[in-house]
Amino acid sequence: MQLMRYNGNLHRINHIFISHLHGDHYLGLLGLIFTMHLNHRTNDLHIYSHRGLGEIITTQFRYSLSAPRFDIILHTLTPDRQEVILENNQLTVTTIPLKHKLDCSGFLFREKPKPRRIDKDRIPADLSLQQLAGLKTGADVVDEHGNIRYRNADLTHAPRKSRSYAYCSDTAYDENLVNIVQQVDVLYHEATFMESEKDKAEETKHSTAAQAAEIAMKAQAGNLLIGHFSARYKELDPLLNEAKVIFKNTELAQEGQTFTIEE
Amino acid sequence: MQLMRYNGNLHRINHIFISHLHGDHYLGLLGLIFTMHLNHRTNDLHIYSHRGLGEIITTQFRYSLSAPRFDIILHTLTPDRQEVILENNQLTVTTIPLKHKLDCSGFLFREKPKPRRIDKDRIPADLSLQQLAGLKTGADVVDEHGNIRYRNADLTHAPRKSRSYAYCSDTAYDENLVNIVQQVDVLYHEATFMESEKDKAEETKHSTAAQAAEIAMKAQAGNLLIGHFSARYKELDPLLNEAKVIFKNTELAQEGQTFTIEE
Repeated sequence: MQLMRYNGNLHRINHIFISHLHGDHYLGLLGLIFTMHLNHRTNDLHIYSHRGLGEIITTQFRYSLSAPRFDIILHTLTPDRQEVILENNQLTVTTIPLKHKLDCSGFLFREKPKPRRIDKDRIPADLSLQQLAGLKTGADVVDEHGNIRYRNADLTHAPRKSRSYAYCSDTAYDENLVNIVQQVDVLYHEATFMESEKDKAEETKHSTAAQAAEIAMKAQAGNLLIGHFSARYKELDPLLNEAKVIFKNTELAQEGQTFTIEE
Repeated sequence: MQLMRYNGNLHRINHIFISHLHGDHYLGLLGLIFTMHLNHRTNDLHIYSHRGLGEIITTQFRYSLSAPRFDIILHTLTPDRQEVILENNQLTVTTIPLKHKLDCSGFLFREKPKPRRIDKDRIPADLSLQQLAGLKTGADVVDEHGNIRYRNADLTHAPRKSRSYAYCSDTAYDENLVNIVQQVDVLYHEATFMESEKDKAEETKHSTAAQAAEIAMKAQAGNLLIGHFSARYKELDPLLNEAKVIFKNTELAQEGQTFTIEE
């Protein structure tokens, strides 16, 4: 329903990453699969989750005497270990072990290095497709004897930045995260509580806004998004301010908002 | 989410009736249970459903390594048979066998006869509690010799009307319904299609708006609510008009609307 409300395009969703099997983190998935089915989806849907989700999905479909028209390919995560779970031409997705009450993983999305950008105004007309492809990887243009005809730097601009995003859902404060999310462009880190409820955070294996900011600061993240706030907080500014004292570039992750990561 | 949006009070929900296990008819239940848990519910929750829902719920809780703080009491429906599944001082709830692609039942809610209403302006001050209770059941007030002191009709008004509501979710056209929902105050009957898609309705075991109206007319229902419209209909007035030709007191069941049944 939220995807519909914010004009999300279901057809563009091919990979879904579920951090852990608490209801607030995956119950909407079943309705989403059902809606994709009604919308005549045929493309494979890849779902990454800890053990159990397959049984949950198949139990539901068994009793509905139906099955989706598309294939669901379930990738089972390994708890407590970093692993690359998806790699294609554009990016890699790596798990981030989190400390919660049950198997729980965050996800680190890193774009691969991008091609150098050819300067259309300076490019000679006689270059072959192969030479153009070479320029994008950083090669100079050479003649048949291996002599440089054009230097790469004269015909291309630096590639766009490869962006990265780390999603750290439910977790207790864990300094091991600092290394894994080092210099990430955007870090999402849960901030269920404020420091005044630090005991409650420890007991329930959640973090405070200050702790989220601590991780962002130590990891030298570009920006921090905090979310997953306890319903006890009617106002969210105190959480934001608590984090900002430690890490200035903090924003509240509120439903329906869009954040652009510059290339 | 819809309950929240329309200010539904979760604490007042103690019985939930699920007609069948297609996703659009029960997937929200799991989020609702989860929300009730977060809201510190302690009262029992009774759920009425065909076989399978218990396994679906327990599978989810098994993998979340958690359980709700309240008891869920699951009542398994018998397919293809009318049965009283709930009876208390106020009402009875009876299943309505429906014709769909899997076990599917509607629900008939009938209020029990209500007490006669005592006319406070005419009631003598010296009546005992027992005599007052007797008046509500229709008894006269008699003296110790059995002689009538006051006629019931002089001290009371007729009871309020006992209301009834039949919920017939997904079903092919089925004349057997006519008897079961005879003279119900409000009949909800699905109307997934229009007559122009009658073949599609038969194939998918759904009904047309005209068929829903046919049942309402033959059952002499007070009002008809039609719903469960196929997403192909961007405008719903044609469905409403198709039904109204056959049964005038028809309304569209649209999310968030409230219908009052007069006593």
